[in-house]
Amino acid sequence: MAITLFNTLTRKREEFVPLDRKEVRLYTCGPTVYNYAHIGNLRAYLFEDLLKRTLLFNNYNVKHVMNITDVGHLTSDADTGEDKMLKGAKREGKTVWEVAEFYIDAFNRDLFKLNILKPTILCRATDHITEQIELIKRLEKKGFTYVAGGNVYFDTSKLSDYGKLAQLNLNAEKTVQARVEKDANKRNPHDFVLWFTKSKFQEQEMKWASPWGEGYPGWHIECSAMSMKYLGEQFDIHCGGIDHIPVHHTNEIAQSEAATGKKPWVEYWLHNEFLVIGDNEKMAKSGDNFLTLSLIESKGYPALVYRYLCLGTHYRKPLMFSYEALEGAKNSYRRLTEKTLELKKEKTAMKEDKEIADEYLAVFTAQINDDLNTPQALATMWEMLGDAKLSGKGKFTLLLKFDKVLGLDLKNFKEEKIKVPAEVKKLAEERELARKNKDWKKSDELREKIKALGYVVGDTKEGYVVSKV
Amino acid sequence: MAITLFNTLTRKREEFVPLDRKEVRLYTCGPTVYNYAHIGNLRAYLFEDLLKRTLLFNNYNVKHVMNITDVGHLTSDADTGEDKMLKGAKREGKTVWEVAEFYIDAFNRDLFKLNILKPTILCRATDHITEQIELIKRLEKKGFTYVAGGNVYFDTSKLSDYGKLAQLNLNAEKTVQARVEKDANKRNPHDFVLWFTKSKFQEQEMKWASPWGEGYPGWHIECSAMSMKYLGEQFDIHCGGIDHIPVHHTNEIAQSEAATGKKPWVEYWLHNEFLVIGDNEKMAKSGDNFLTLSLIESKGYPALVYRYLCLGTHYRKPLMFSYEALEGAKNSYRRLTEKTLELKKEKTAMKEDKEIADEYLAVFTAQINDDLNTPQALATMWEMLGDAKLSGKGKFTLLLKFDKVLGLDLKNFKEEKIKVPAEVKKLAEERELARKNKDWKKSDELREKIKALGYVVGDTKEGYVVSKV
Repeated sequence: MAITLFNTLTRKREEFVPLDRKEVRLYTCGPTVYNYAHIGNLRAYLFEDLLKRTLLFNNYNVKHVMNITDVGHLTSDADTGEDKMLKGAKREGKTVWEVAEFYIDAFNRDLFKLNILKPTILCRATDHITEQIELIKRLEKKGFTYVAGGNVYFDTSKLSDYGKLAQLNLNAEKTVQARVEKDANKRNPHDFVLWFTKSKFQEQEMKWASPWGEGYPGWHIECSAMSMKYLGEQFDIHCGGIDHIPVHHTNEIAQSEAATGKKPWVEYWLHNEFLVIGDNEKMAKSGDNFLTLSLIESKGYPALVYRYLCLGTHYRKPLMFSYEALEGAKNSYRRLTEKTLELKKEKTAMKEDKEIADEYLAVFTAQINDDLNTPQALATMWEMLGDAKLSGKGKFTLLLKFDKVLGLDLKNFKEEKIKVPAEVKKLAEERELARKNKDWKKSDELREKIKALGYVVGDTKEGYVVSKV
Repeated sequence: MAITLFNTLTRKREEFVPLDRKEVRLYTCGPTVYNYAHIGNLRAYLFEDLLKRTLLFNNYNVKHVMNITDVGHLTSDADTGEDKMLKGAKREGKTVWEVAEFYIDAFNRDLFKLNILKPTILCRATDHITEQIELIKRLEKKGFTYVAGGNVYFDTSKLSDYGKLAQLNLNAEKTVQARVEKDANKRNPHDFVLWFTKSKFQEQEMKWASPWGEGYPGWHIECSAMSMKYLGEQFDIHCGGIDHIPVHHTNEIAQSEAATGKKPWVEYWLHNEFLVIGDNEKMAKSGDNFLTLSLIESKGYPALVYRYLCLGTHYRKPLMFSYEALEGAKNSYRRLTEKTLELKKEKTAMKEDKEIADEYLAVFTAQINDDLNTPQALATMWEMLGDAKLSGKGKFTLLLKFDKVLGLDLKNFKEEKIKVPAEVKKLAEERELARKNKDWKKSDELREKIKALGYVVGDTKEGYVVSKV
């Protein structure tokens, strides 16, 4: 069955046809590891995982490359602002290398908890400095660069189609000028740095030798260098959040197509919308007070509940986050897992099973192949689970098939995940009593004891909630 | 619980707060009755019905006014092109008045079959010529008009905020200029006709006396005149398809706010996306070969199956139409009605019912109150129907509550609607045989016999399908 995807490059829904009939080559922009990922970042990785699972479901092999930005980068999309890695290091009194290690571990834990399939290749920018320098040299040889104020710039005026992804023309001009602080070295407002040797960050710890002097790469070059190393000079799909469209992905295209002379560099560009909290503000990692997966887990919402929540909103629609919505997802997920355990015990199939299951499978497949329409696919799943004409065994088999796409880890769901042991319950009750008596010290001690047993206790308006970590 | 709606005027999701705490005043643009409504038009009325049902569900009274454009109008958004009513009349050899009557009847039948609640007031443009003339006189007195080439124009340069709904500024300028044929009488490109006395339609049958000579009103004035007559000079919500944003609704705002001097004329503007067939083309009534409700019914898809299909896609997302999707909706709707009949027989409630039902109701309400998120609400409905903890009686009661919003007419669904009588089945079998023998005459006769019994027979790849008309 054909897969239709909305391509940002053309602003149209298009039938997906990979360059190589058997293997899809996919690149997704990974994290900048100067802090924990917030749940808005995680929405992007969940969307990309859904895309990948959908491709696998349609019998494609997928070669998936994700980068880790572990080199100093700036707090804004522009070549200005504060160095993010450095800021993280200062805050924690560590070296930037230690900071990177710490947050890469945290990121991997998040992916694991969310049941996100591992990329085929997860590659670090600092391991690919040579490739980045080679790419800049290639651009230099073709006359696409200039040196000014000690830094190497990409000259966007050398391209006739710069900014085609953003499609903004005059508007884009205004937007970029408004967002980017003036840099007197730039010949054109859209030009960007490929290699820094001079910057306001004198304390910069990460530096490498280069033909232009000791320094470090600009923000965009790593994605072009690493994706082309592993996926070839042209590949199928590139993903990221919609915030990447006007600058980061625009510049990736510019430097990649300039270097190779081949167009299009990438066939399909897919972008997910933001997670939104309160009054239409996107959640930005650079701001203070952001929601992490650990934080919502500590409030009694397991990671897969967040995954279920995300499935309920189409990836190209803003996801309105609230604890009420998360509570709803939690209840649905609980019902789904209870149902799964119940169906697992059923051993008798019915002879009509195949026909009915095939029909549901066709509908489900059409829905996810329709630009990943997960809200509809969830409705089909629940419809199927309530269908008296299908046996319990038939439902269980089909549910596990659906879950190959949904990724809710239903196959591995065990009774004990929802049954809280008596011992833990008792500790939670004691803690509740301590809280009522305002004995915060004891309450904290009991929370630690519960944690040691592998559970977390959270507090809601309706009382405490215990969940497996 | 608060209702959040996406307001085109601000391009933001906003909490809905009506001007009058008890009654919501709603205006929706109705049909131009020179032809049948196509299913793309009907999507708009289904969306507006969903909005209205959601308001009612939240205990608001709703005063709903819909217009019927039964006066000659032009085939394009501009003041140019062919007169649509006249075109319809010519095609059918009737007077324009007869054409209007005929298609108003057809429109009302469509609304009835789709279970769309009747507007409080359904008003015809030709019954409100006086109000339109009065409004133009009011504009004239305030200096917002000029006469040129025999027609009265609205002078958009007299407003400082013309085009605020479309928010396009320079782009809008280009769009309008590209879409509108040049009219040498216009002082500004956006100016539009309020009253025609001269036009290229010499055969124009509908004419009225006016201070500017015998003629007929321009396209936009009727909506301002009738909405303000019945809903007051300022009211809550105005709806229509997204194609109305740049010209029709923009001009309605201009003339209404100019006349009253009160801003905003309407607080919330809601627009639905298109139904899309094939390669991203919107379905336009002016084109040939369009899909009507009767056509899809004749293929074996009852009107409420189309309603179910529409509920599966959020109103602000393009709805991709295909017979495969319609077939999926048909199966789901069949399962839903079968389930309804089965639950209807259940008489025993359980003591946990209330608590569980309240929880589902809260989730469902939050979903529809979240800018009418029906795909999520459908998932919740199916989840609830499969929940073993809720009794059949509890489910039935709750399902009928949900259906107050969904409008699938489950309460009135009767066994015979799905059970095809033996007599009809026999005729359908005979017809199938006749078709196999290529006896088309007999096959057509049998189709007519089946129709006389109140059923339609359609043909699919898998064989024939019989449904109640």
